[in-house]
Amino acid sequence: MTSDNSVGTVSLQYMTVAEPPDELVLDSGEKLGPVTLAYETYGTLNKDRGNAILICHALSGDAHAAGFYKGEKKGGWWDIMIGPGRAFDTSKYFVICSNVIGGCKGSTGPASVNPKTGKPYNLSFPMVTIADMVKAQRLLLERLGIDELLCVSGGSMGGMLTLQWVAMYPEMVRSAIPIATALKHTPQQIAFNEVARQAIMADPDWRNGDYYEHGQPRRGLAVARMIGHITYMSDASMEEKFSRRLKDKNYSFSFNTDFEVEGYLKYRGESFVRRFDANSFLYITKAIDYFDLSEGRLFPKGTPADTRFLLIAFKSDWLYPAYQSQDIVKQLKRRRLDATYCEIYSTYGHDAFLLEQKEQTHLIKHFLHKTYRGK
Amino acid sequence: MTSDNSVGTVSLQYMTVAEPPDELVLDSGEKLGPVTLAYETYGTLNKDRGNAILICHALSGDAHAAGFYKGEKKGGWWDIMIGPGRAFDTSKYFVICSNVIGGCKGSTGPASVNPKTGKPYNLSFPMVTIADMVKAQRLLLERLGIDELLCVSGGSMGGMLTLQWVAMYPEMVRSAIPIATALKHTPQQIAFNEVARQAIMADPDWRNGDYYEHGQPRRGLAVARMIGHITYMSDASMEEKFSRRLKDKNYSFSFNTDFEVEGYLKYRGESFVRRFDANSFLYITKAIDYFDLSEGRLFPKGTPADTRFLLIAFKSDWLYPAYQSQDIVKQLKRRRLDATYCEIYSTYGHDAFLLEQKEQTHLIKHFLHKTYRGK
Repeated sequence: MTSDNSVGTVSLQYMTVAEPPDELVLDSGEKLGPVTLAYETYGTLNKDRGNAILICHALSGDAHAAGFYKGEKKGGWWDIMIGPGRAFDTSKYFVICSNVIGGCKGSTGPASVNPKTGKPYNLSFPMVTIADMVKAQRLLLERLGIDELLCVSGGSMGGMLTLQWVAMYPEMVRSAIPIATALKHTPQQIAFNEVARQAIMADPDWRNGDYYEHGQPRRGLAVARMIGHITYMSDASMEEKFSRRLKDKNYSFSFNTDFEVEGYLKYRGESFVRRFDANSFLYITKAIDYFDLSEGRLFPKGTPADTRFLLIAFKSDWLYPAYQSQDIVKQLKRRRLDATYCEIYSTYGHDAFLLEQKEQTHLIKHFLHKTYRGK
Repeated sequence: MTSDNSVGTVSLQYMTVAEPPDELVLDSGEKLGPVTLAYETYGTLNKDRGNAILICHALSGDAHAAGFYKGEKKGGWWDIMIGPGRAFDTSKYFVICSNVIGGCKGSTGPASVNPKTGKPYNLSFPMVTIADMVKAQRLLLERLGIDELLCVSGGSMGGMLTLQWVAMYPEMVRSAIPIATALKHTPQQIAFNEVARQAIMADPDWRNGDYYEHGQPRRGLAVARMIGHITYMSDASMEEKFSRRLKDKNYSFSFNTDFEVEGYLKYRGESFVRRFDANSFLYITKAIDYFDLSEGRLFPKGTPADTRFLLIAFKSDWLYPAYQSQDIVKQLKRRRLDATYCEIYSTYGHDAFLLEQKEQTHLIKHFLHKTYRGK
């Protein structure tokens, strides 16, 4: 065990979920194959296979939700929420997290080698949607022998995958916990994604997506990430963290870094370049922008509708404001579903779903316990 | 007259306000000279010279606040507010607007020719502050024979210049109308400016500021402007204007423009490149970030303090939220100043100060009338 209540040492696994001639038929009409998903699991699947929980990651997340790789210090992106005794209690539940298709963390994406050409797909990689990502995840669960999920959960884009799971496979999903998310992207949310994409595509090093031999479009990708970072925080959390503190004693009267917040953004931009593929960023943001389960598409008429819901939003989240979670609740209530809505006070902004351990743990633990016992 | 209540045809004028050996001493300690300001005036200066109003422009504004150049259709940036019978009533008042130093609309800035080298300054242009801009404006007023201002007003950065005028020359300013502005930039506001600067500086065509022979860093500057544009609008105004409407009937499943909001942002980015200098953008955003009249600096101890204030903020403005205007009011009330605060309901976001004619006109007209009559 790397620390108390951690799932301890974990390792990334791979599963080929579609192999030619069985290709994955995408929303665009194109076909993709072979399709490999990178995934991790924590805890043990019960004999009755009724304790499986699927965790879905956000834009820049990956399959490494919990625990530690050998020698790794930081741990998975939701380690505070997954482990023995934690919100997603791995002493009771079997937790799975998989990297989405289009991603760059082990699943098939634009940086993968196209077996037909022997070269990376680059922009010949087909456009994928949130629904396509879910279709691939379902194939993974099939191969793992899981045909029912006690719960699907995730924040931000992970929340969209959660909603898409319910929309497409309601009979498989006993409960869902979408966090800090929305039924569809608003024009403001699309705009932030589009500007980030434009920043990448404006970088000559992007080379129309064909850059793998030369290295990332570093500058454009860093700018894209900096834009994102501002939207993940809040006015209040930035004030708490940086205020107007200077890096040096006085203004530089130059275009060097004056304020701590500037240095922080540059650091986050640069470190993102080292860990995330620019083309994947383009594909995944586009999938998010296309996502739209409004106007009754969450539960199309005639689908069984008995999934239980817990919805969580955060007061200072201005990227996915609470009213968007409330809109989800309205849709659910119209279908007379069992839905609990909680708005957590936090100054962390959108990042709160990654940081607010205590309140989320309390809500999720209780909700899962009730759902599991109700079986 | 181009339209009813317009000031009609106007023309840009120039005044050299500092010539060597009389250079302008800047906050950085550097000296700048010669300094030319581009400006416009509307209405007539009374014999007692007591009816002069100074209008200060925002980041990408200029001296052309009202009226129309010959053949021009669009008119000045605040034409809805300045003219006979309008908020700043040119049948009563003499209105002046000047382009700031560091700008690119006729005043001395980084694109100006440095007389010492015969070449554009580029990055050898000294860093200027909001206070430096105000010092230059004061020299302009001196040369125009104006030693008292009935009012100084402006929105956004124009509001900062307004506050700076009061801080530096309180005896000259009878009243001030800072709109949608702040005493200082918060880390979130600095962050948006810094990302925009990084987008410009990441463009190889920026050439470390030395691009005038080659043309603008088009792509970087366009991205910078797109970021800005999102912050000038609101979630609600973008929903009203664009919602999720597509440019074509279906998703393109490509990185082409899908949503109308994407096309709009690109259009605004590209048109900005045609009208604004990238280096000026860098210098002016830095001046804004450096601006800080908090902690008693608005009225340093011992300064006369009898300027009357009207402060205007807008409900949906999340770039310069209303609490920042309220902070200004608190400082003023602590010095027992006559300050009226109005929060206007608008969905236009920060852009509201350029668009909300009716409410602003009502407030400003009445306030100016009372101030003028009180003479």
